[in-house]
Amino acid sequence: MGPTRLSTRSEYESFVDRYDTFLFDYDGVIWHGSTVVNNVPKVLDMLRSRGKRLVFVTNNSATSRKDYVKKFTSLGIQASVEEIFSSAYATAVYLHDVLKFDPSKKVYVIGGAGIRHELEEVGITTVGHDDIAQVSLATLKEIEPSAEVGAVVCGIDYDISYRKLANAHVNLVENPDCLFIATNDDRTLPGGKHMYPGTGSLLNTLVHSTQRTPLVMGKPNTPMLECVLKKFSLEPARTCMVGDRLDTDILFGIKGGLSTLCVLTGVADETAVCSPESPQASYYISSLGDLSVIQ
Amino acid sequence: MGPTRLSTRSEYESFVDRYDTFLFDYDGVIWHGSTVVNNVPKVLDMLRSRGKRLVFVTNNSATSRKDYVKKFTSLGIQASVEEIFSSAYATAVYLHDVLKFDPSKKVYVIGGAGIRHELEEVGITTVGHDDIAQVSLATLKEIEPSAEVGAVVCGIDYDISYRKLANAHVNLVENPDCLFIATNDDRTLPGGKHMYPGTGSLLNTLVHSTQRTPLVMGKPNTPMLECVLKKFSLEPARTCMVGDRLDTDILFGIKGGLSTLCVLTGVADETAVCSPESPQASYYISSLGDLSVIQ
Repeated sequence: MGPTRLSTRSEYESFVDRYDTFLFDYDGVIWHGSTVVNNVPKVLDMLRSRGKRLVFVTNNSATSRKDYVKKFTSLGIQASVEEIFSSAYATAVYLHDVLKFDPSKKVYVIGGAGIRHELEEVGITTVGHDDIAQVSLATLKEIEPSAEVGAVVCGIDYDISYRKLANAHVNLVENPDCLFIATNDDRTLPGGKHMYPGTGSLLNTLVHSTQRTPLVMGKPNTPMLECVLKKFSLEPARTCMVGDRLDTDILFGIKGGLSTLCVLTGVADETAVCSPESPQASYYISSLGDLSVIQ
Repeated sequence: MGPTRLSTRSEYESFVDRYDTFLFDYDGVIWHGSTVVNNVPKVLDMLRSRGKRLVFVTNNSATSRKDYVKKFTSLGIQASVEEIFSSAYATAVYLHDVLKFDPSKKVYVIGGAGIRHELEEVGITTVGHDDIAQVSLATLKEIEPSAEVGAVVCGIDYDISYRKLANAHVNLVENPDCLFIATNDDRTLPGGKHMYPGTGSLLNTLVHSTQRTPLVMGKPNTPMLECVLKKFSLEPARTCMVGDRLDTDILFGIKGGLSTLCVLTGVADETAVCSPESPQASYYISSLGDLSVIQ
């Protein structure tokens, strides 16, 4: 028995009744780039009016939670910082709460402002973002490991440089206690008409050079989910993950023991959803916006 | 029967007599960084005086052949541009002579001046080295594949940027005819006291993001050797590869059907050379300089 298609009002009603909490992926579910998916704001309002808890979960590490709130607001969607979960925030929470990161140490960041801000919010000092000066074979030897660096965190970095990669490499190789954490391992990144190299691809330089395997926070890996479940004391059986990608969103829900709803407004189409080869969603629906027919 | 150790004058004599051509790796064989290995210039002079052909073969793509001649001269070693073989030069020769690269197309280069200069010497136009301007999620979509790009060549690039990686990615993914060539696949790069990410590691970002496998020119892969054998019309049975790394230099010689001499002045030590697990060199010697006892 494959995923159940939701298409009638009574199916929508009983689906919504079954859960207390809904986790949502962003792109392809809530919006496409800067365009909100039809009727989705109405659906989110309906869920709130029924007392459901909403949590927004993204692998994107480039944007801070505060900036995501601004984006939601600009699209006419009510959301608070507490409801936003990004892989950057999950990295900060996991380092601070789960790994009890030594506060006298620093984190070497390959990544954008989103990661730096979230780490600094939990009191962790970051280094590395200024390491963009050119290097040459003659000056390479100036790049030394630092006893102060307790972790290398890698996310998407539009300012990637050889100096950053070399710094991360020597710290990871010459200090075996240095943690190696990746915000996510997405192979590619959508950017309009084309796909571009994602965090998982950038990361592969260091995975290969250091021969070390990072702890990956984001979907479909479970550390981010552990953070979400713990923060909100969620009951997996009463929680549904809503997403558009089978290999990240739906697999993430399945690994966490959640129910899952796949929408067809993003990456996955009906053939992929119903293929026995795919991670099996509990339910699927044309669009999250379809639920707007119930109040 | 493992590799034969050369340690007496008569062993040196009969070894040298057996070959017409010697191929040499650079670092760890001829020099260490900027210090020449003891007695090596004398040995090279002795080989020349006996009418041997010398070819210097490096995986390094950052330096052009002309600049290598300057380095050899500064260390008191006579060498001509014709005797220098780098992975950058091999890439240019292979594209031009073997693959008959369409002269109306351009090569997108991730790499240093060494590659650009060698490609331009054979009349191939290069693009990409200026692609260091910052990019953001909002401006990513400006990065488009170009019908003019007929190949992506990747070597060591101390000016690596997300814009370069994104450009290479879209050309490789959206134009299946675009060739994908790597100068070498060295995992790491020696830089004084430490090792740093090598071309093979930088390359892994694109291998993972594009899911394409590059043609790799350098040791231990055979395309560079094909270029060397062809250029000098060498007879493999009368040619010996001299190197310090078993997994690159010695394996390269073995794959090409050459004899091999491993020196112990670089990466491999005697235990590694004699291990049955290692690529089996024909001969080994403490140092190339030891041959200076014969005239």
